Amino acid sequence: MAKELTSRSENYSQWYNDLVLKADLAESSAVRGCMVIKPYGYAIWEKMHAELDRMFKETGHVNAYFPLFIPKSFFSKEADHVEGFAKECAVVTHYRLKNNPDGSGVVVDPDAKLEEELIVRPTSETIIWNTYKNWIQSYRDLPLLINQWANVVRWEMRTRLFLRTAEFLWQEGHTAHATREEAVEETTRMINVYADFAENYMAVPVIKGCKSANERFAGALDTYTIEALMQDGKALQSGTSHFLGQNFAKAFDVQFANKEGKLDYVWATSWGVSTRLMGALIMAHSDDNGLVLPPRLAPYQVVIVPIYKKLEQLEEISAKVKEITAALRKRGISVKFDDNDNKKPGWKFAEYELKGVPVRLAIGPRDLENNTVEVARRDTLEKSVQSLENIDQYVEDLLQKIQDSIYKKAFDFRAQMTTKVDTYDEFKKVLTTKGGFVLAHWDGTTETEERIKDETKATIRCIPFDAPEEEGTCIVTGKPSHRRVLFALAY
Amino acid sequence: MAKELTSRSENYSQWYNDLVLKADLAESSAVRGCMVIKPYGYAIWEKMHAELDRMFKETGHVNAYFPLFIPKSFFSKEADHVEGFAKECAVVTHYRLKNNPDGSGVVVDPDAKLEEELIVRPTSETIIWNTYKNWIQSYRDLPLLINQWANVVRWEMRTRLFLRTAEFLWQEGHTAHATREEAVEETTRMINVYADFAENYMAVPVIKGCKSANERFAGALDTYTIEALMQDGKALQSGTSHFLGQNFAKAFDVQFANKEGKLDYVWATSWGVSTRLMGALIMAHSDDNGLVLPPRLAPYQVVIVPIYKKLEQLEEISAKVKEITAALRKRGISVKFDDNDNKKPGWKFAEYELKGVPVRLAIGPRDLENNTVEVARRDTLEKSVQSLENIDQYVEDLLQKIQDSIYKKAFDFRAQMTTKVDTYDEFKKVLTTKGGFVLAHWDGTTETEERIKDETKATIRCIPFDAPEEEGTCIVTGKPSHRRVLFALAY
Repeated sequence: MAKELTSRSENYSQWYNDLVLKADLAESSAVRGCMVIKPYGYAIWEKMHAELDRMFKETGHVNAYFPLFIPKSFFSKEADHVEGFAKECAVVTHYRLKNNPDGSGVVVDPDAKLEEELIVRPTSETIIWNTYKNWIQSYRDLPLLINQWANVVRWEMRTRLFLRTAEFLWQEGHTAHATREEAVEETTRMINVYADFAENYMAVPVIKGCKSANERFAGALDTYTIEALMQDGKALQSGTSHFLGQNFAKAFDVQFANKEGKLDYVWATSWGVSTRLMGALIMAHSDDNGLVLPPRLAPYQVVIVPIYKKLEQLEEISAKVKEITAALRKRGISVKFDDNDNKKPGWKFAEYELKGVPVRLAIGPRDLENNTVEVARRDTLEKSVQSLENIDQYVEDLLQKIQDSIYKKAFDFRAQMTTKVDTYDEFKKVLTTKGGFVLAHWDGTTETEERIKDETKATIRCIPFDAPEEEGTCIVTGKPSHRRVLFALAY
Repeated sequence: MAKELTSRSENYSQWYNDLVLKADLAESSAVRGCMVIKPYGYAIWEKMHAELDRMFKETGHVNAYFPLFIPKSFFSKEADHVEGFAKECAVVTHYRLKNNPDGSGVVVDPDAKLEEELIVRPTSETIIWNTYKNWIQSYRDLPLLINQWANVVRWEMRTRLFLRTAEFLWQEGHTAHATREEAVEETTRMINVYADFAENYMAVPVIKGCKSANERFAGALDTYTIEALMQDGKALQSGTSHFLGQNFAKAFDVQFANKEGKLDYVWATSWGVSTRLMGALIMAHSDDNGLVLPPRLAPYQVVIVPIYKKLEQLEEISAKVKEITAALRKRGISVKFDDNDNKKPGWKFAEYELKGVPVRLAIGPRDLENNTVEVARRDTLEKSVQSLENIDQYVEDLLQKIQDSIYKKAFDFRAQMTTKVDTYDEFKKVLTTKGGFVLAHWDGTTETEERIKDETKATIRCIPFDAPEEEGTCIVTGKPSHRRVLFALAY
């Protein structure tokens, strides 16, 4: 088979790269660190986009669009924010090219220098809060619950397709509230939306929790996160929701008259997920044969491959497939019938396995005689022969079964790969041999967190919301701790 | 009324600006020439996006995503293209800021200068054809039918909200074909899709035709356009579809093996519409009271306003409204019930007129007694009292009637504003007194076209596809001409 992948056990990282390329999801572009999202990869992102957008709207949010560019001076207004983003941003300094006098193409026109440089947005808090300033006068203007779908740029030096790219696609919610409580509630609401999406659509179990101070978003008082575990035992931060306090309102002087007529600064949140989710989706479920997609996000959920020798047989099969397809579509199931005569069934089987189509139906002349069809599940690679009677109901049930089953598989894997440790030696041993999530006591200081990171590369992924109170001692310093926190090596 | 608009007759241009701001569609941002698309404006764009995307997919296209940045050298590869775009583009020269040693914020880090400058895409032909080079080897890889939804930047000096902004949102289709015929067919197919969308969704009649050589897209062999007429008698180019020949394939060396095994350059098209369509939509139908939206693109099609004095009355009304709303939604009609107690009905009536909601229902205690409702049409401002019996059917029919009626109004206006002239004097007189579309004979030369433009500001909007053959003489030079072309002052 031409498109064979490196196996996961041989080289996990290479397997991922092979898979992204060979399943036609994305590729590197001529621009350093920027990717091309290919049609099949983009079709998955469109499904994610549609479901998330629906969930945002159901929780009361509306979409808007803010400028790509941010004046440089805006960055300086929130001290932590500039510190976090200034070192990795694309800067526009000129607005015109001109013909090179030597005839060798075009050069930047030095006469077209901007008075103030513009930053290509790495995130939009500053431009948005500068805009909100004009939209908010009184408590009656609050809350503002606005989301933006956009591209952003962070000048990463080491990039990997979907996981870390200079330009990526994302959504960023930016909300404004009259009270701290409301803003905290919103921060929680959105991390729950993300967790719901990850678990029920991506079939990826996640742990919800708080970031340590060290890992917070630049400018936030609190960052909530959902953390997923990949098959190689590394964690992947999959979505974050930030409680920004009054930091941006103060930086951009956004005050409102409250019900008592007094001026107060507005409370803020922001929250985002990005095309990085594609990386999580790919790595959570796929195998050495290719992608495994959850049915709810698969561009097509069912592929039908005809098995025939003569063209008359194809005609008969096609007539039957038309019925099957109509019945499946009536149930809202997306179907592709691949009757391409240039490719053999074996090639097609491998191709759709590579592309992760959840269910494959193969149908030949003998099936027509027996009123049967061969059904193959992508997740388990199991095949069975089923009656064509009620095949639509069978496939609908099977898709649900696959959705549940790949979630359970990932959930069980995570359970097995989550280890409680009580000493630093144990901690290091688990990280180097088994990997996965490690639950350990920590004294709550940034010094200890950084020492652990320096010595083991592990980071605190989060302080889980549901971490039970448990008295213990920090694995490094022996100081008291009241709950375990979640460590892992991470993407 | 606080939100009163300048009237169209007083100052059309000011009326447009007032309307865009007061109907909460968009506003200028802190970044010169860039706009903020506000939630209500974005909701209309989302509707446009959804319908166009469906139409693209139904004609066999898929979506993908290409980088925001284009290496400067790519621009030089197609001579006309660089000529057309180099003078108005945002240039990224650095990838990092650093703290200003004097402590006054951040400055561009001179050590982080890019080896080759990056252009923020003004259009993506170059980066896409550089990518297609790797995707196309044989005729089996063709056609490629790919669309991208994206933001683009053209450094316009004089900007107007939606009509001409430095950054705008658009879609750009880029297709690759094995033959000239196929590419021309695609160019035609897509201008027809745009015309279908403009007429059947936006309710804006358009004239389809060919651009003159002078007005072609930079790098195209032929540009097809749809031209709409605004209420002030000026034309607005609303969508273009370009036959690019083999220009970009040659510039980026994209060859394929045809069925005979011989190498040939690939044939190309590109086509796009942008947030400029919002400007067309606003200007085509709206009046001195505000927006008039076609029902098919209205964020909500029906608003219900309760009329009451006591809160008990509101409760009774709300119970009835719940029934009405359910019945309307069942028919796929979007409804907003505005039971905000802080605003008077009169304020709400004016507000929803300003926002162009096609149908308003007002319901009070007497209506409950009589089982009636007051129905107001936004387009004609007519009011009538209707029975609540089958009100859902009535509203559904009314929405269709409104959609048809505003199209007809725009169509009749255009017919009345289209003038055939046979002399240059007549031509000038029509332009300065009546405006609108002017059909006149032209000798086909760029010199004459430019002379007319210099002397009258009118441009050739297109050579209509359906222009009948008619022998005549050019209004300027008296040279022979075989059909009339369409002139107008234009946005």
